[in-house]
Amino acid sequence: MRLSRFYMPVLKDIPSEAQIVSHRLMLRAGMVRQQGAGIYAWLPLGQRVLNKIANIVREEQNRAGAVEMLMPTIQQADLWRESGRYDDYGKEMLRITDRHEREMLYGPTNEEMITELVRASVKSYRQLPLILYHIQWKFRDEIRPRFGVMRGREFLMKDAYSFDVDEAGARRAYDKMFLAYLNTFARMGLTAVPMRADTGPIGGDLSHEFIILAETGESQVFCDRDLLELAPPGPDLDWDGDLRALVAARTALYAATEEMHDSAKFAAQTPKERQVSARGIEVGHIFYFGDKYSKAMQAMITGPDGQDRPAQMGSYGIGVSRLIGAIIEANHDEAGMIWPEAVAPFGIGLINLRVGDSACDSACAQAYAALTAAGREPLYDDTAERPGAKFSVMDLIGLPKQLIIGPKGLAAGTVEIKDRRSGEREELSLDAALNRLCANG
Amino acid sequence: MRLSRFYMPVLKDIPSEAQIVSHRLMLRAGMVRQQGAGIYAWLPLGQRVLNKIANIVREEQNRAGAVEMLMPTIQQADLWRESGRYDDYGKEMLRITDRHEREMLYGPTNEEMITELVRASVKSYRQLPLILYHIQWKFRDEIRPRFGVMRGREFLMKDAYSFDVDEAGARRAYDKMFLAYLNTFARMGLTAVPMRADTGPIGGDLSHEFIILAETGESQVFCDRDLLELAPPGPDLDWDGDLRALVAARTALYAATEEMHDSAKFAAQTPKERQVSARGIEVGHIFYFGDKYSKAMQAMITGPDGQDRPAQMGSYGIGVSRLIGAIIEANHDEAGMIWPEAVAPFGIGLINLRVGDSACDSACAQAYAALTAAGREPLYDDTAERPGAKFSVMDLIGLPKQLIIGPKGLAAGTVEIKDRRSGEREELSLDAALNRLCANG
Repeated sequence: MRLSRFYMPVLKDIPSEAQIVSHRLMLRAGMVRQQGAGIYAWLPLGQRVLNKIANIVREEQNRAGAVEMLMPTIQQADLWRESGRYDDYGKEMLRITDRHEREMLYGPTNEEMITELVRASVKSYRQLPLILYHIQWKFRDEIRPRFGVMRGREFLMKDAYSFDVDEAGARRAYDKMFLAYLNTFARMGLTAVPMRADTGPIGGDLSHEFIILAETGESQVFCDRDLLELAPPGPDLDWDGDLRALVAARTALYAATEEMHDSAKFAAQTPKERQVSARGIEVGHIFYFGDKYSKAMQAMITGPDGQDRPAQMGSYGIGVSRLIGAIIEANHDEAGMIWPEAVAPFGIGLINLRVGDSACDSACAQAYAALTAAGREPLYDDTAERPGAKFSVMDLIGLPKQLIIGPKGLAAGTVEIKDRRSGEREELSLDAALNRLCANG
Repeated sequence: MRLSRFYMPVLKDIPSEAQIVSHRLMLRAGMVRQQGAGIYAWLPLGQRVLNKIANIVREEQNRAGAVEMLMPTIQQADLWRESGRYDDYGKEMLRITDRHEREMLYGPTNEEMITELVRASVKSYRQLPLILYHIQWKFRDEIRPRFGVMRGREFLMKDAYSFDVDEAGARRAYDKMFLAYLNTFARMGLTAVPMRADTGPIGGDLSHEFIILAETGESQVFCDRDLLELAPPGPDLDWDGDLRALVAARTALYAATEEMHDSAKFAAQTPKERQVSARGIEVGHIFYFGDKYSKAMQAMITGPDGQDRPAQMGSYGIGVSRLIGAIIEANHDEAGMIWPEAVAPFGIGLINLRVGDSACDSACAQAYAALTAAGREPLYDDTAERPGAKFSVMDLIGLPKQLIIGPKGLAAGTVEIKDRRSGEREELSLDAALNRLCANG
């Protein structure tokens, strides 16, 4: 992409309303623009990151055997009356009345709708197990939206729902999502720790939040340091095999959010030098709630014994839009954001230090073509800005690598590669630079 | 994908509420399920087609130089008061009040929001031209939603918006979208004819609808038969070159929707044997409306002469979810849907006629692995259903090719390939079949 043809309205002033660093940086870099309290337009730079995160989530859901679908944002009130949550949900539910005075709502979550869908078509244990998911906009009318996309009202969520004939099957689905989440967050460069959590308005008696540690985290969390060192299961995991040991290796170690924390248990279970108490950001939340919805809504499954019973269910959420904020909170410095490779909006920032100089223009054209062909997604700053401004903007938006081409270097036969995270710079020939950058895509 | 692990709830009975063939087939095949009047859940089979259509739209928008972003579904009423459309829009606008009694709405279109975004950051002709687009859910509270996803209330639309400093620039943006649309629809196997159209609530004085002809079309249209024969401009078009001749070659020929039809002009301009009067389905609509929004909302651009003027704008829509219905209306037979290759939910239906038979199972496993590796996206019917039921379902969902593997054929050293559209069948060895099917992906 040529910057002159892109739309990236960088702000010079730091917006005063933004309290946390991710919100400030996203506004400054022109990734989002507020369109109402807790409602954001995703400008092109932000949309690209959102899309990359959603794709990683999608790939890891598919790998674990979940099947993608897409439920609408608007739901009927009657559906929520069946579960009893229409009245329970309170003011966070955005209630809507249409032209025919029908009561509707903007979905904050989809347990009811998916239960209705499955009860209409799934009758026998032979049709199970089933994990369905979608990536769709949700709305929760938070009383005080804040922290930018970290706690917005309209937000993008991946929510999956599992259906099984018995508790053992449901636990297996839970374990699949548990492990899929570890792989998902690891691919984004995040270490997410599963922690026992409160089930809240979703209900049920088993639940884990996936928490990443960051100084600016919204809540206090407690865990065993060993959990931070455990490698994710990885893409070669046999999803049809026994997953219990992999999950148990993690749940055996202490980890809890503030609401579930038991300091005596923490101390008894965890050697002092391994006790971590830190701030955390929730990026995923999984629930096993058995027959809470299937019983109320009569989603019955005939088992191998010929008996009908309510389906055993769980639900599994990842805050896709919130993750952008979380990744920035965990990856930035004074100059701006530092994107992990897999979610960077572009792979390489190509800076032309003197647009109009024929040597610079032609070297940049060559680099742009080669990097594009190699799938490295360069963002080419071909604007007439001065070098200092170009450097600041490129550091601000935090692409993993920069390739800097200027007249002085070219006269000496060199260009410069800068690694955004380490700050390391290296001068080398254009060919050597392109070989290097095209190879590590 | 193995059908046993997929979720495709095929209906045995033809739903009586569905009036048109695309709606009936989508319900029967388990592509969608109604969740309220004009509101649908996209089940996995439908979601896959929706995703393929959206991706083609996206690729062709990008090729023409439009830049993707993503605006929220919920908008502030005040924004629409600036343009005067908050009161004008009427009951089709879904109006919402939040917990703080703020007036909001579910966006039916985004002219106001994009104008607000651009006025905040674009001040000079040097920052133009600009075409921004997003693919996002919209809501129009139709009084009588019908025809399934063809006229739903919650629907997925691609809407693009162009900004230029003068009319010549705006006309150029219009021409780009005009030609990009021809390529977009052609890739989906559709011949879409641009027709002069009424501008309706969007406003302006230049507008074309893109119409595909289908017996079940919603409105009467009139055009010169030659327009149906013109090849699309194709992917090698130079988008930076002069596009006027390509557009003029089409606009010179008569084509109009019913509201704009002038029968005297039609007769004068079109030889009798080339006069087509047919039913049509609108799949895209483009508008040039000059300064209608930029003037009301003060989106001012400084020109090369140093003078400020309102930006010249246009907007460009494609009904992504509606297209699925339109494609089915134009591509089906008595047995079911017939998907054009580029938008088929899967490329090949692989039918195992005797699951449990070791020769069948191992030949199917080999075929499934080879087709998957070749990127042909097979849907493998590995269920215990009887052959007749498998054939019906595979014909109903209309994948372009079927590979049928059974014990009798294998004993004779053959498998069968069926072309869904022509109905042609061919017996050949498994290796030859796989060579053929893997090659034409």
